[in-house]
Amino acid sequence: MRGKRVILQTIIKNRALTSSLSSPSSSIHLSHSQQSGKFQHLGFDLPDVWPSGPCSQLTSKPLFDGPSAEIIDGKSIATMIKSQVAGEILRMKDEVGKHPGLAVVLVGQRSDSHSFVRTKMKACDKAGITSCVIELDADCTEDEVLQVVSNLNKDPSTHGVLVQLPLPQHLDEEKIINAVNPEKDVDGFHPWNMGCLAMKRREPFFVPCAAKSCIDLLLRSGIEIMGKNAVVIGRSKLVGLPVSLLLQRHHATVSVVHSFTKNPQDLTREADIIITDVGLPNMVRGNWLKPGVIVLDAGTNADPNRKQGFRLTGDVCFEEAVRVASAITPVPGGLGPVTISMLLSNTLDSAKRAYGFV
Amino acid sequence: MRGKRVILQTIIKNRALTSSLSSPSSSIHLSHSQQSGKFQHLGFDLPDVWPSGPCSQLTSKPLFDGPSAEIIDGKSIATMIKSQVAGEILRMKDEVGKHPGLAVVLVGQRSDSHSFVRTKMKACDKAGITSCVIELDADCTEDEVLQVVSNLNKDPSTHGVLVQLPLPQHLDEEKIINAVNPEKDVDGFHPWNMGCLAMKRREPFFVPCAAKSCIDLLLRSGIEIMGKNAVVIGRSKLVGLPVSLLLQRHHATVSVVHSFTKNPQDLTREADIIITDVGLPNMVRGNWLKPGVIVLDAGTNADPNRKQGFRLTGDVCFEEAVRVASAITPVPGGLGPVTISMLLSNTLDSAKRAYGFV
Repeated sequence: MRGKRVILQTIIKNRALTSSLSSPSSSIHLSHSQQSGKFQHLGFDLPDVWPSGPCSQLTSKPLFDGPSAEIIDGKSIATMIKSQVAGEILRMKDEVGKHPGLAVVLVGQRSDSHSFVRTKMKACDKAGITSCVIELDADCTEDEVLQVVSNLNKDPSTHGVLVQLPLPQHLDEEKIINAVNPEKDVDGFHPWNMGCLAMKRREPFFVPCAAKSCIDLLLRSGIEIMGKNAVVIGRSKLVGLPVSLLLQRHHATVSVVHSFTKNPQDLTREADIIITDVGLPNMVRGNWLKPGVIVLDAGTNADPNRKQGFRLTGDVCFEEAVRVASAITPVPGGLGPVTISMLLSNTLDSAKRAYGFV
Repeated sequence: MRGKRVILQTIIKNRALTSSLSSPSSSIHLSHSQQSGKFQHLGFDLPDVWPSGPCSQLTSKPLFDGPSAEIIDGKSIATMIKSQVAGEILRMKDEVGKHPGLAVVLVGQRSDSHSFVRTKMKACDKAGITSCVIELDADCTEDEVLQVVSNLNKDPSTHGVLVQLPLPQHLDEEKIINAVNPEKDVDGFHPWNMGCLAMKRREPFFVPCAAKSCIDLLLRSGIEIMGKNAVVIGRSKLVGLPVSLLLQRHHATVSVVHSFTKNPQDLTREADIIITDVGLPNMVRGNWLKPGVIVLDAGTNADPNRKQGFRLTGDVCFEEAVRVASAITPVPGGLGPVTISMLLSNTLDSAKRAYGFV
């Protein structure tokens, strides 16, 4: 066990130092197998450390001067979805006298988490979804959280149970997510739902909201997915993993790029659709793109070029990409608002199932 | 609903007729969205119909005359794994007086299924695993199968429960697989296990045997996976899907090719590792490969070039690939035997967990 830890630390250290996309040498990899005496079928769990550096600094002169891409207006689409959801909830109240309920479990005092939860609550309220937040102290026990989740699972007026992540380090996120009833897992992070998403002919109760938003935007924009080359950059359970599975269910040819990928540009330059979920401002430059590509940017980063105040920016260098792509989502105002509307939509779907309301 | 069926039939018909790798026209895709009035986030469930034709016919003259690849000897590796498993079982008997048990549920009279089950039973017997087959008539009810599975879930001497697929059409495969306790699901087909395989930092109870075999062969052969370009051809739950998830957990850059992929050669020619799971003899030709590539062939097809009798052949044109690749699995004698040994290994792991035996 000690050997493993040392090697992992070496790998992480090497990666942080080099800031190149090359992978650690094979000798490191093999030495683990030799040391442990057992083959690790599941691989090492290594964090994705993306290199920062020149790509986050933009030149002041635009490098491309092609025609401008269609800007996919996430804000308007989100407004439309929210209004559809609200309409359905009115119909539900009218026909069966019921409405959806969402409960959020919020542990600790992280200000970003509190702010996200407030946004969700506000959107629920506007749509006609009853929402509640169960707040727990940062030093609460795992059993306390599990008890809260268990109570919400049993509550018939709660159709969606959402555990706001990240949790404080002493809590086992996996165990807590597993405890959420998959039929109320509106985040779609339960392994049952992820497994059903991965497997043909199966239908998960829920698909993670950000990934569902990507597909929704493509479909609403009339973009064909079947047979297209899609490259997903990043592999988180929020976006990269579920959207790669969804794109494959739509019969795209999907390649997943991550921080261990050598020369990611070789893949992105062949892509008809690119979805990024990295967390690194301006990582994807204009010269990474094939003319006419569709770019969906799920990155939400603090803009490094902003001299004062705070502004959100994506993973894609928008100023360059907009002159190469045929359609692109802006940040902010792209995937973000649609993701919130998908949470409402997932909660509505759950209530519909619970009441057999079509 | 009727609209959906008609469109699906049209797509399938088109695909069968054309035998080309191009996807159906966008008008078909869009017309569905328009007709149903709802976006299908999960996509259509379309079968993979691979084009047959010239690629299944080999020229008599070899097209390549490079050096010959290392042949990965699955048979020897399988013998080694089986012997390790048998050794562990002896140790278990010795130390805790217990041994693993596998139960196979076999419905109907398909001769291929009966033959597969006999092979598994024989391997269990040799390794020291108690095995039993619960045979049910082809016209049994779903409830009868579910009852058998439920009894096996409860039986403490059964550590692996395997439902031999395919099941007769009147039975709901999904419902029956879901009924297997994930902790006894030695096939790894339960959505819980597939979801845990897909998600970072999670550990499934079991990984599907054929996919685990692929990774095992790569690791045993000292082939580095991290940072490599891997192309998986096919996306079944037996091989394609789980092996693509496993390769990604090992930090390869994974692209999944399927029957809707246009110009699959463009991707395969850039691959350092290729794993095929198609079911089409000689689909992958020598000119699809980059010199030095590693090729694992999970195809099991009747050899079309065999004039009399029956011989198994893979998805890769072995005679050509062996002169381009640096290592390759033959068919037969490659992944097949290792897959059986992985079933024994999974069953042993399950018994170890059940008895807390390390």
